[in-house]
Amino acid sequence: MTRSTNQVYPVIWHNDSVSLIDQTRLPNEYTFVEIHRSEDMARAIKTMIVRGAPAIGVAAGYGMYLGAREIKTSDRHEFLQHLDKVAQLLRSTRPTAVNLFWAISRMLKAAYETLGTVEDIKQTLFQTAQAINAEDLQTCQAIGDNGLAVLPATPEKLRLLTHCNAGALATAGYGTALGVVRSAWREGRLERLFADETRPRLQGAKLTTWECVQEGIPVTLITDNMAAHCMKQGLIHAVVVGADRIAANGDTANKIGTYSVAIAAKAHNIPFFVAAPLSTVDFELADGSKIPIEEREPTEIYQVGDTILTPAGVDFYNPAFDVTPAELITAIITENGAIAPDKLAKSQLKQLPIGLNPN
Amino acid sequence: MTRSTNQVYPVIWHNDSVSLIDQTRLPNEYTFVEIHRSEDMARAIKTMIVRGAPAIGVAAGYGMYLGAREIKTSDRHEFLQHLDKVAQLLRSTRPTAVNLFWAISRMLKAAYETLGTVEDIKQTLFQTAQAINAEDLQTCQAIGDNGLAVLPATPEKLRLLTHCNAGALATAGYGTALGVVRSAWREGRLERLFADETRPRLQGAKLTTWECVQEGIPVTLITDNMAAHCMKQGLIHAVVVGADRIAANGDTANKIGTYSVAIAAKAHNIPFFVAAPLSTVDFELADGSKIPIEEREPTEIYQVGDTILTPAGVDFYNPAFDVTPAELITAIITENGAIAPDKLAKSQLKQLPIGLNPN
Repeated sequence: MTRSTNQVYPVIWHNDSVSLIDQTRLPNEYTFVEIHRSEDMARAIKTMIVRGAPAIGVAAGYGMYLGAREIKTSDRHEFLQHLDKVAQLLRSTRPTAVNLFWAISRMLKAAYETLGTVEDIKQTLFQTAQAINAEDLQTCQAIGDNGLAVLPATPEKLRLLTHCNAGALATAGYGTALGVVRSAWREGRLERLFADETRPRLQGAKLTTWECVQEGIPVTLITDNMAAHCMKQGLIHAVVVGADRIAANGDTANKIGTYSVAIAAKAHNIPFFVAAPLSTVDFELADGSKIPIEEREPTEIYQVGDTILTPAGVDFYNPAFDVTPAELITAIITENGAIAPDKLAKSQLKQLPIGLNPN
Repeated sequence: MTRSTNQVYPVIWHNDSVSLIDQTRLPNEYTFVEIHRSEDMARAIKTMIVRGAPAIGVAAGYGMYLGAREIKTSDRHEFLQHLDKVAQLLRSTRPTAVNLFWAISRMLKAAYETLGTVEDIKQTLFQTAQAINAEDLQTCQAIGDNGLAVLPATPEKLRLLTHCNAGALATAGYGTALGVVRSAWREGRLERLFADETRPRLQGAKLTTWECVQEGIPVTLITDNMAAHCMKQGLIHAVVVGADRIAANGDTANKIGTYSVAIAAKAHNIPFFVAAPLSTVDFELADGSKIPIEEREPTEIYQVGDTILTPAGVDFYNPAFDVTPAELITAIITENGAIAPDKLAKSQLKQLPIGLNPN
């Protein structure tokens, strides 16, 4: 079988540094930012030059290696102490996406378990970062294909709705939710994607549409508040979104607005799928109420481009994520198959080998 | 009782013409547009210099008079033929808000029923337009006060959520949904208003916040997709929105996104109120499926200020309204009291005296 490989890779190791697609400049400019130091990687994650839970994980992996490379000691103990500080810095960037913590923990574990010199550890860290990247790409392709098995059987050509960008840009490539969309498109199962614009940062308008246009996938952009109306009009056959953290009971944190879409999907009996790698599952959290929700600056709400939308004297609330309860989720599509959210904890799916919440 | 009169009047008869607040320039510029001719009024309604169902009705009333004033004949029959054309022009501006058709019908009826000369008819038309304006202001104040009776009894200080702008700017003054908010604020029943920004045209961000700031009402702006999350967090005690057309069974067309908020309110057992004058009720439509939904230009979605949000090659869908089914509405708050939506058709509330759908 030939696989249509997506050409968009948001995080690439290149010329001894990391090239990040600058996602704050899309769709108008397709440019790259070169990252040489862990501090710069932390800033890139915080400012959302790189964003999307799996892509943040990949970027953090490289960030750990870049940090390790900067440590000027041959003493193993001292090196690991410094490496812990790099980990702390990277962990402090964004609180919700668990892939960040997962990738950092995996890198730390690789470092601590490597016998030999500091140089040996650095070499291991580089290989582990590369592995996280390569595995995520394979994982997304598997998620996309596993999604085909659970999409509605009829009609043949589906109209899918997605929220935010869980695409190639949000992962090592191919995407999670957009991985399912890509696989459906490849197999002739997709009529059209509907994309929520996803305020305040407009990842749907700016990134999801851009990915679709790159590949000729028909895409209709709507504002977030149109999703329920579209469902009522019969325009949507299924919803597929990504995830930033999934609790053990299946409750799922994802970009703000996902919960609203899930409630509307339930009200219209439309299946609602979460597509995410198992590294997004936080088995240490019993339910979604424990997932920390990042609050971001109000400027994201009141300013678009150079335009200030509001008068002075207004208050703002800007939660970046919300939690969709498991009962609103038809299935979670992982690289090992799709599963009902309440079966997640007891499933035979690969359990994560490392502690996720080192803080 | 002293009444706190709102100082914002979007449609004023002044110097032999109509002064409209230019709502496309708020909140950055508080300017007026002078309208001397019915054609200019039609354009102002279409381009949303004046918007909001009751305000459109008031503007259309004056538009009919301006058109009448332009007719250069003393022949009654010829005059009325020309007046019908003015009515047609004004009706063609926006399809959803029924107050437009209601006001035009009322003006036409006043003309046809006036005996005497063409000058007598013109005088009647002016008085009728003035009456529509004055009555709407009184109506809104009654709606606001009637809302107090149905708001939740506890807590004492409520946090209300509204969508779009059903404020002074959307009416002759005081507002419908914001009329309820104003009355609650005056009586010490309001802690804070949460306002949906209301994409694509951002009436919540630009107009509702502006009205609140004018009067010192605490307001928190959120993006539309945050409403459900806020409800889940316990931040919202009740929702109050306006209406553009209410069918006889209580199904309510209002700004796009209202339906989504109503579904979320139901899911959280939060009361959901529609505040509207009886002129918004279209007793000739059995249910909401018959309400025509305006589709507007895609530029409203893809452009904010000078910023283009999307790449080339994207499709758009831009319905300006949606229909909230009666079963999601706790009560409709009118100038004659609040009523369950399914009791609307059989109620003792004042029935409209004139046909609403002359086309």
